[in-house]
Formats: sequence, C-alpha cells, structure tokens
Amino acid sequence: MGDNRKPQRQERRRFLTVYGRNAVLEALEDPEMDCRILHLAKSNRSGGVVKEIQRAAQSRGLDYREHSREELARISRNGRQDQGVALDVYCPAMRELDDYLTTLNIHSDAPQRLLALDGVTNPQNMGMVIRSAAAAGVTAVLYADRGNPALGPLVIKASAGTVFRAPLLRCQSITQASKALCDSGFELYRMQAKGSRSLFDGQGFSSRALFVLGGESHGISKELSELPGENLSIPMQNGVESLNVAVSGALVAYIASTGN
Amino acid sequence: MGDNRKPQRQERRRFLTVYGRNAVLEALEDPEMDCRILHLAKSNRSGGVVKEIQRAAQSRGLDYREHSREELARISRNGRQDQGVALDVYCPAMRELDDYLTTLNIHSDAPQRLLALDGVTNPQNMGMVIRSAAAAGVTAVLYADRGNPALGPLVIKASAGTVFRAPLLRCQSITQASKALCDSGFELYRMQAKGSRSLFDGQGFSSRALFVLGGESHGISKELSELPGENLSIPMQNGVESLNVAVSGALVAYIASTGN
Repeated sequence: MGDNRKPQRQERRRFLTVYGRNAVLEALEDPEMDCRILHLAKSNRSGGVVKEIQRAAQSRGLDYREHSREELARISRNGRQDQGVALDVYCPAMRELDDYLTTLNIHSDAPQRLLALDGVTNPQNMGMVIRSAAAAGVTAVLYADRGNPALGPLVIKASAGTVFRAPLLRCQSITQASKALCDSGFELYRMQAKGSRSLFDGQGFSSRALFVLGGESHGISKELSELPGENLSIPMQNGVESLNVAVSGALVAYIASTGN
Repeated sequence: MGDNRKPQRQERRRFLTVYGRNAVLEALEDPEMDCRILHLAKSNRSGGVVKEIQRAAQSRGLDYREHSREELARISRNGRQDQGVALDVYCPAMRELDDYLTTLNIHSDAPQRLLALDGVTNPQNMGMVIRSAAAAGVTAVLYADRGNPALGPLVIKASAGTVFRAPLLRCQSITQASKALCDSGFELYRMQAKGSRSLFDGQGFSSRALFVLGGESHGISKELSELPGENLSIPMQNGVESLNVAVSGALVAYIASTGN
C-alpha cells in the first residue's frame, strides 16, 4: 500500500494503537470499536490466536499489513509486550487541543468543562478518571504526551474500554495547555487540599472552566500554581487527609457537569 | 492473664486485628493508632523484624502475649499470612448496628446518612469507599460479616489506613441490616442503573437515609430490591454503562453529606 494511505499527522493523533494478542482480538470482536488497520509481525507463527485474529479481521472486512519485528515495535511503541500484533483504532471523540481551540467560537456561551490531570502517572487512575469524566459528560479530558501515562493496556482496562469513545484533547503538556486555555478565556480551577473555596459550595463556575487535579505524590506543579486561577478544595472529615485521585476526578467531573 | 482481661464480645467487635510483620510494625509506629494487644507466635525466631516489633511495642508501653501457631492463627484469622504476628487495634468509631439503633433517639431530627455495599467483594473497592465515605462525613458505613470482604490488609491499604478511624456499623448481613433500618424509619435509596430519580436532582433526601450500592457483578440483591424504597441513578453519557463502585460510592457519600 502506498504512503498516501497513511493518515496525516493530525489524523494519526485520532488513533489509539492497541497491542498484544488478547487485547487486539477483544477489540476486533467488539462491534463498537472502529478498527482500521491490523499490523502483524512477519515472524508470527500462524495458527492459534494469530489465526483467530486474522479471522476476526477478515469478518470485519479489515486488511492487515505485515512488518518486521522492529517496524512493528515502532508502531506499537512497546516491542516488549506487543506479541507481534498491533491494531489502529479510530477514536471519534479524540482531538488535538489546538484544533479544539481553533473551532471554539470566541463568542460562544456554551459551557466548556475541561478536566486535566497534572503529573498523574498511575495508569489505573488515568483510566478511571477518563471513564468517570466521559460518564459525567465533561466537554473533554486533556491528555498530555508528556506527564500522563501512555494510553496503553492498563489505562484501557481501568477505563473499562471507554477511552476509545471518551472526549480527549491531546496536547504536549498540561502546563502548556493550561496557558493556552487561559489565553482563550478559560478560568483555571486548581484542586488543592487548602483551596479557598469548596467544590460543593453551589456557587457555580465560569462558563469556560478548566479543572486541574494534581498527581499522586507531588500535587499540582509549581508552574501551574503560579498561573491566575482559583483554588478549590474537597472538604474532608474524620481526619482523612486526601482522596484517591480517581475519586477526586469523578467528584469534580460530576459537580462540574451537573452544575451542582 | 485471666479471662477477665478479655474484652467482652460487644467490645471485641470494636477491634480490628492487623497481622503480618510489616503491617503490625507500621501500626505500632503510627502514633494515631490505638494499639492494645500484641500477639506473637512462640515459634517466631527472635531478631530481625520481630525484634523491631517488640521494641516498638515496648516504647508504647504495650505488653505482648505469646501463643502457639494454632492459637495465633485463630486470633489473626489468617494463619497463612500472619507471619506469627497479630495486633489488636481499637477503632473508636466502630460500633454494632444494634447498639447504634438502641441509642438513636426516636424523635431525633439529626440527619442520618448511612452507606451500605451489598455484595461488594472486592477489598480495594471496599477500602476506597470507606476512605471516601469517612472523608465525606457520612454518619456511618455498614460493614457486614457476611457479604463484605474481611477488613484485612487489602482493605486497610486501599482505605489508606482510614478504616481504623472511619465510622463503621457492624452487622451480620446488609439485607438484615436494611430491614432493621427500615423499621427504624430509614428511607432506602438503592443505586440502580435505571433509577427513577437522579442522585443529582437536588431534591434532598429523607432525614434518615440509607444508600445501598450493589456489587461489581450482580448488582443489588433480589431481597433488597423488593424492600420499599426509592431507586436512584447516576446519569451517564457517552455510552458509558457503569461506574466503578468506588467511584459511585464516593459520589453518593459526598452528595448525601453535602446536601447538594
């Protein structure tokens, strides 16, 4: 196949690459997944799961491409765990932040509710927050190439598969993205243990709101703390000092979306 | 030591028994833990961690008792993993449901917000819900001897240690407890995917409210579904079909407590 079949960079960023034999087979067998290109290592022995994968692809009318082990590792970005199999899945709700900002009408009053995880490196937490945020109906979750865990099997599993249809805005880093959003009229709400305002005070939020949660160990970065914005807290009793970030993320997502 | 030193049954139920060398040492070194009795197997070789444990107990002025391996296994209730070490920790906020109901003033208007997990068997989820519920300030979480996971190391870890100070009401089963609470004027709110009312509708709840969440695989039991009560749902968008029970539990706990 010629190079002209390759999605352009912008388009490529709307794909997630699933790897590993069981994960790929599961994706192919899920009618809700928009599977596009199956990649196989030439070195795969045919038969067994590989045969099942090829059959599942065929029954979807999906072609496959063969690659050397090295080429496949570049595609899966995880040569150690791809087991010679990778699959590009199209994620209709995944966009570039730049693209989102370009099409966001300057005069639009439609409430925008964005969620960002600053320095959250635990894939389980990332996946759980994506699932809750998608369920809550936030506008989107920022997903940073640097600082967030790769959208690999652990994130996919913890998200219960919702990552493929969740509204995600891809960006380079949460700091850069936050600055760009502030420049576009977004109010920054930082979740802090000692925030001046309670998330539950019912006072509402700016029409364009970006909620940022800090990572498991270091909280919100110094750079983000210095940007203009408000600090929100989740009140805690019984001497509890913190909540799991997946829990905080769900509370923020639902309170932000339901307008409570 | 004579039998008269043994806490009575009612009192005993206010203790959690921590086991395993590292868990016990950690508990002894935590000034916030009310450690009462250290149990050691006679067969333990002295030195190493056991020596550290004895030293930590001594610096608290805590005595220890020696037992046969078999006796210790009865105390820890987990002979496979206790490593010859167990520790009774007093949990001031843990009570029997019967005791709570006896002292609950019939005419009291103070809002009661109870949370129950029906058939939730995953210790991580149990621990995370206890942590969130304690933080939210619910009146108490029901903890059933049958149907909930043992309050062992996995629950303690997932609760980030809050299980020792969380308000817990011990009962035999969630079904029995729910019936007893209904008899005491509690309204039962069942969390169901197809509830008739949204958790977020802002309409408030009965002054005495028991919120029940179903287990990971089977949801709320048939028996509980047939009790009088209301079905509440958490609205979900983007095709998400369910939330992690730890996430639902946190949402319920905070919405119930903050009165949103």
